[in-house]
Amino acid sequence: MTNTGKVYLVGAGPGHPDLLTIRAAKLLKTAEVIVYDRLIQDEVLALAKPSAEKIFMGKPLGKHASRQDEIHDLLVRKARAGKMVVRLKGGDPFLFGRGGEEAEYLAEHGIPFEVVPGVSSCLSAPLSAGIAVTHRDAASSVAIVTGHQAAEHDDRVDWQALSKVDTVVVLMGVHNIEHIVRKLMAAGLAPDTPAAIIQMAFWEGERVIASTLGAITEDARRAAIEPPATLVIGEAVRLRDKLKHHQRHIGQHTDSAPLTHVVPVAVTIIDQPPGNTLSLEEESYISPAPCEKEVLQ
Amino acid sequence: MTNTGKVYLVGAGPGHPDLLTIRAAKLLKTAEVIVYDRLIQDEVLALAKPSAEKIFMGKPLGKHASRQDEIHDLLVRKARAGKMVVRLKGGDPFLFGRGGEEAEYLAEHGIPFEVVPGVSSCLSAPLSAGIAVTHRDAASSVAIVTGHQAAEHDDRVDWQALSKVDTVVVLMGVHNIEHIVRKLMAAGLAPDTPAAIIQMAFWEGERVIASTLGAITEDARRAAIEPPATLVIGEAVRLRDKLKHHQRHIGQHTDSAPLTHVVPVAVTIIDQPPGNTLSLEEESYISPAPCEKEVLQ
Repeated sequence: MTNTGKVYLVGAGPGHPDLLTIRAAKLLKTAEVIVYDRLIQDEVLALAKPSAEKIFMGKPLGKHASRQDEIHDLLVRKARAGKMVVRLKGGDPFLFGRGGEEAEYLAEHGIPFEVVPGVSSCLSAPLSAGIAVTHRDAASSVAIVTGHQAAEHDDRVDWQALSKVDTVVVLMGVHNIEHIVRKLMAAGLAPDTPAAIIQMAFWEGERVIASTLGAITEDARRAAIEPPATLVIGEAVRLRDKLKHHQRHIGQHTDSAPLTHVVPVAVTIIDQPPGNTLSLEEESYISPAPCEKEVLQ
Repeated sequence: MTNTGKVYLVGAGPGHPDLLTIRAAKLLKTAEVIVYDRLIQDEVLALAKPSAEKIFMGKPLGKHASRQDEIHDLLVRKARAGKMVVRLKGGDPFLFGRGGEEAEYLAEHGIPFEVVPGVSSCLSAPLSAGIAVTHRDAASSVAIVTGHQAAEHDDRVDWQALSKVDTVVVLMGVHNIEHIVRKLMAAGLAPDTPAAIIQMAFWEGERVIASTLGAITEDARRAAIEPPATLVIGEAVRLRDKLKHHQRHIGQHTDSAPLTHVVPVAVTIIDQPPGNTLSLEEESYISPAPCEKEVLQ
């Protein structure tokens, strides 16, 4: 008889291999089975040993419920076959993404498991754009909400309450951005409240739109922002103007520049030919050439 | 003339070296100067090269303002001396802890800097206690607030709004727990709302109290809970009963057991002689012997 294996529910962080925890990297290197979602970079999966079985279980839109059942069954089946299983989830395993349900299911089926926290995009996406979600002068509370089902399950989210929290971070909110913005403005937030959207934080091709609550829906549409993206609303966004000059090694930045951009005068703009990548030590905030004038105005 | 160095504002995560990001570990290994706070484990600092200058800049209670100025000056001085400086901060550098101010100060003084996100205790402390802060059935929004200055600057925090968010996570709230609980109950939260407090998450000596909003102040007092500790309030805490059986390698758990404990019937209790430590693969949830009967009731 085979001994039951163990399932590690592991947060992969924003996706870049350098933002894995050491624990996550160690587990990936020893896993016999890796069950992973979308938004995991190839370099992360490349840590696995050659014999590891890598199973993609990302969810196509609209197929969430049945897919989740498949994941549950798969984890139990592999563990019962005696395998050391890493269930790799973007960000942190216990913030959205149904990691809690997976843990519950494992517990109910007597499968040993361990949960390993990760760097969540609720903080790292704003950080990547130069936004500190709290600030002694500007923000002492943060609310995190998923925008994923905002339109369908709207009774679940008290937008009136969220509008009173200093900084609001909406994960997976791109598709429902219009609805979310309307709710927050109906709750009393002014149209000129600073707002930003960060697409693909810490990935190549990261883009940031800094705007206002009243304008960001149209700005995101015009810039063709796609998931995954994080929406941040509140005065903390304004402080970004001071912080966005930092240099970094991981990922690259494009400041998409809608006409209504909240713009620092001093931002360094680097023309970026398509397909080109910045060297590691260059200024990481860039803007596509066509918008340069608006950005600098 | 010396070239200006660079400052890396690095999140250290909960404190355990395995929960550093790979990027943080790499930077620590190459840093010439490390400026660190309280709550950084020795094993983390041990990553530094022998020649690195390690400067402790933790803040004694009540000396925060002047100490922060000293930190700002130190970072600029070391960078101007051409050093590669790691400013190591517990958790994530941009959630509380004044990382945003440090970045601002560096930007204002023309010092190159980079911010490296970390695993924040706002998620990892609940996770460590088996609490998923969101859950499809129980919680779709999370609020994070600091309890540090809750009593003095109470006008800054809208407890009424926070009480309407599904899960509330209070960082640094131990000293003001009575005040915080009173505010949330005055805002309409029922005394039987599940609440938990996690002390020293992912450290040896980690303790968890699972209780109710109405009882947790007294429970924390009786168990002599000390900072650092994270308070979690909301239905998501109740689901912990299902998830707390997981095994893990990092840190150990003590379920401190006040009489009003919200207790799962099936929890495995292991008698733990003082000073003994559990082997890595043993059940990590333990309870001090004197409370065992109450825990199991």
